[in-house]
Amino acid sequence: MLLLSTAITPLLAAPTLEEVRSTALNSDEIAYDIVEGLTTEIGPRQGGTEAEARARTWSVAKLKSLGFDNVRIEEYQMPTWVRGEETAEIIAPFTHKLAVTALGNSGSTGDKGLEGEIVYFPTLDDLRAAPDGSLKGKIAFVSHSMMRTQDGSSYGAFGPARFVGPNIAAKKGAAAIVIRSAGTDYHRNPHTGNTNFDADVTPIPAGALSIPDAENLERMLKRGKPVTMKLKLTPKNVGMQVSGNVLAEVKGSNPQLPIIVIACHLDSWDLGTGAIDDAAGCGIIAAAAKHLKTLGQPKRTVRLLWAGAEEVGIWGGKDYGSKHAAEPHALAMESDFGAGKVWAVDFTLPDSASEQKAKIIAALAPLGVVPRKAPAGGGADVGAIIAAQKLGIIDLQQDGTKYFDLHHTPDDTLDKIDKAEMRQNVAAWVATLAVVANYEGELKP
Amino acid sequence: MLLLSTAITPLLAAPTLEEVRSTALNSDEIAYDIVEGLTTEIGPRQGGTEAEARARTWSVAKLKSLGFDNVRIEEYQMPTWVRGEETAEIIAPFTHKLAVTALGNSGSTGDKGLEGEIVYFPTLDDLRAAPDGSLKGKIAFVSHSMMRTQDGSSYGAFGPARFVGPNIAAKKGAAAIVIRSAGTDYHRNPHTGNTNFDADVTPIPAGALSIPDAENLERMLKRGKPVTMKLKLTPKNVGMQVSGNVLAEVKGSNPQLPIIVIACHLDSWDLGTGAIDDAAGCGIIAAAAKHLKTLGQPKRTVRLLWAGAEEVGIWGGKDYGSKHAAEPHALAMESDFGAGKVWAVDFTLPDSASEQKAKIIAALAPLGVVPRKAPAGGGADVGAIIAAQKLGIIDLQQDGTKYFDLHHTPDDTLDKIDKAEMRQNVAAWVATLAVVANYEGELKP
Ligand SMILES: [Zn+2]
Ligand SMILES: [Zn+2]
Repeated sequence: MLLLSTAITPLLAAPTLEEVRSTALNSDEIAYDIVEGLTTEIGPRQGGTEAEARARTWSVAKLKSLGFDNVRIEEYQMPTWVRGEETAEIIAPFTHKLAVTALGNSGSTGDKGLEGEIVYFPTLDDLRAAPDGSLKGKIAFVSHSMMRTQDGSSYGAFGPARFVGPNIAAKKGAAAIVIRSAGTDYHRNPHTGNTNFDADVTPIPAGALSIPDAENLERMLKRGKPVTMKLKLTPKNVGMQVSGNVLAEVKGSNPQLPIIVIACHLDSWDLGTGAIDDAAGCGIIAAAAKHLKTLGQPKRTVRLLWAGAEEVGIWGGKDYGSKHAAEPHALAMESDFGAGKVWAVDFTLPDSASEQKAKIIAALAPLGVVPRKAPAGGGADVGAIIAAQKLGIIDLQQDGTKYFDLHHTPDDTLDKIDKAEMRQNVAAWVATLAVVANYEGELKP
Repeated sequence: MLLLSTAITPLLAAPTLEEVRSTALNSDEIAYDIVEGLTTEIGPRQGGTEAEARARTWSVAKLKSLGFDNVRIEEYQMPTWVRGEETAEIIAPFTHKLAVTALGNSGSTGDKGLEGEIVYFPTLDDLRAAPDGSLKGKIAFVSHSMMRTQDGSSYGAFGPARFVGPNIAAKKGAAAIVIRSAGTDYHRNPHTGNTNFDADVTPIPAGALSIPDAENLERMLKRGKPVTMKLKLTPKNVGMQVSGNVLAEVKGSNPQLPIIVIACHLDSWDLGTGAIDDAAGCGIIAAAAKHLKTLGQPKRTVRLLWAGAEEVGIWGGKDYGSKHAAEPHALAMESDFGAGKVWAVDFTLPDSASEQKAKIIAALAPLGVVPRKAPAGGGADVGAIIAAQKLGIIDLQQDGTKYFDLHHTPDDTLDKIDKAEMRQNVAAWVATLAVVANYEGELKP
């Protein structure tokens, strides 16, 4: 059907939406090339580091070469934490080295490390229930039972072991904490990610064990004898450092119309090369914006925001929100959930845009994308601008079944990208943008 | 059918082979418990180390508790190499840390590491073709294209990059060598394993890169600029150390009959916990021997050989071969290819035993095991005794499709064991042993 409609289009006419969607679906390599380039020529690019600065330079060159308008960097300063050495060893009743990694904002054990008896909490609620002071001098170990879910919602359910577990353990007097990685794989690659301590709490050393190691520790504990760990984590805070966002645009024909911002994040955690999190998102939105141009100049300006320092505190998204608070925006979208297929679409739009919504649903249907009844929420990097201007939002929901196998691990590398799935993703994006970027009516709910 | 035949067996009669096979297939946890115990209470247990000694002590207690006869340790001495620090970093034209591990017998870079330009060889034959002296001061990088195969034969085709690549590179003057891991996974866990240098060749630092890292390095090289690596590997030789075999028996009713030896290896590489390589083999043969006893005392003695120091030079197998050279053996079998299903059986038996062969084939058929036309070859740990006495051999061939995803990596952990597959494996072993251990005729070909 798609091929037939291509065949009967008159020569030199602008392509139809169906044709552009088909091109994206069948032949696009722009998105993959961006992931390939970032993972090969830059690698890990943690927010606030020199590697992230190299990634910005690389990105400006890439976005210019793709023909985008107004390609530029907007810098800001941010407090920066960097990883040191990291080892964990069970020293009694058995001797085992465990695969561990420090969580972002973890305290340091010092170069000599620290030893402590493990106090086991099967769930975060068990840690919450521990009496104050009961962990004095001990190492808390929090496990959980995170399973794979298509929508990734198990991260919301079990991620708090990482987000708030260390703060809770610190307040109860623990010397340190290790958690079962917030992940769903069985490889010896722990999952890092930020944790946060209250301003009046001194950060304690906080690490994540790989899942095979966490399960081994549980088996040791089940034997009933006290288990002692020697933990060494030597991260440090290196003060305020430069980070930045990279912006680029497809200029719209009507500069009076509020713009559309589409976002990904350029920074990545330091353990992998940030292929699925989130070079993929940057590749997807850039490819979609590039295809959009082949439909002819859109009415609205579409701005690409390749945000800095998302992982370590959404510094880029916050900076964008404050620097662009006065500039009229209409709609925000974000791609930050890997390179997998889009399976659903959610909307936060005004009732007046129901015809546009129907057009998008129709354009996504051939790609196997279904509408849901849930409102769209956007993403971390567009959160500040959405809040500031109460924007319209469209979420292209990706299949996250395997996402937390790789998330924040050394295994987040180029080989994990499925080109065919990524093409479907780009096709869904361009089909959606083609509607909203050419609609002059209200998009804010 | 099997359940029905159980139901009509008179009380107190010895169970039939079908019943024992069925028991093994449906309810056995002996094999799993051994893997669970070794991986939890001991962990990695490299040949010649203190951890291997703890594993021997553990094994003696376990085999005694299972009721085997003559449980004992036979010690020997062996030269021992131990891992040090290991890091690899690309320093130009991009900067990347690569996941690397030293190969067994690797030389040391010294504490300061060494820097060198990468010389790329897509295959081992390309390295072989390099002119003598052409690698002076350089770091050779040998890649390959090992794919998954059911019979594991791709290890034979591509393993030589590890077995002999470093020796070849050293002879051509290379400062060091890194290879693409001899494996089939895509995780950031390099595959270690022994390499060997000729007596007149000074060992050079020799490492394996994880497969995602090897592919990233290839992508960097394809950009056409010289690529420089900083490599640090600081392993060392710690001289002669004690290792040992653990032996145990099911005593046969006729001590005149030559014995059957069934083997696994107790040692493991140091990166994982040696679950599939080869705690699984030790679990499988012990479970099978234990089930064999429930059939009534066999005519022949069946000896379990939990060999030491296989990975680092088959020291246990060689020691067994020389210490037991004068003791009459009839047949050897080995389990050292993971915990997966048995899919085929190979024989090296005399023509006179064709009826026994047919019985084994019939007993294995309900388990989905097919006979092949290939002769049986045995395994590393029984190689010396087979060679010394020209023994009969039966190989229960396991499905090796995923074996080289895990082989010699940190990922070789308990969670990789599939209990149902392991039970099928044990059932195949007991069905086979039940025939040969009760056959009084000649088993040597
Ligand atoms: Zn992300
Ligand atoms: Zn082995």
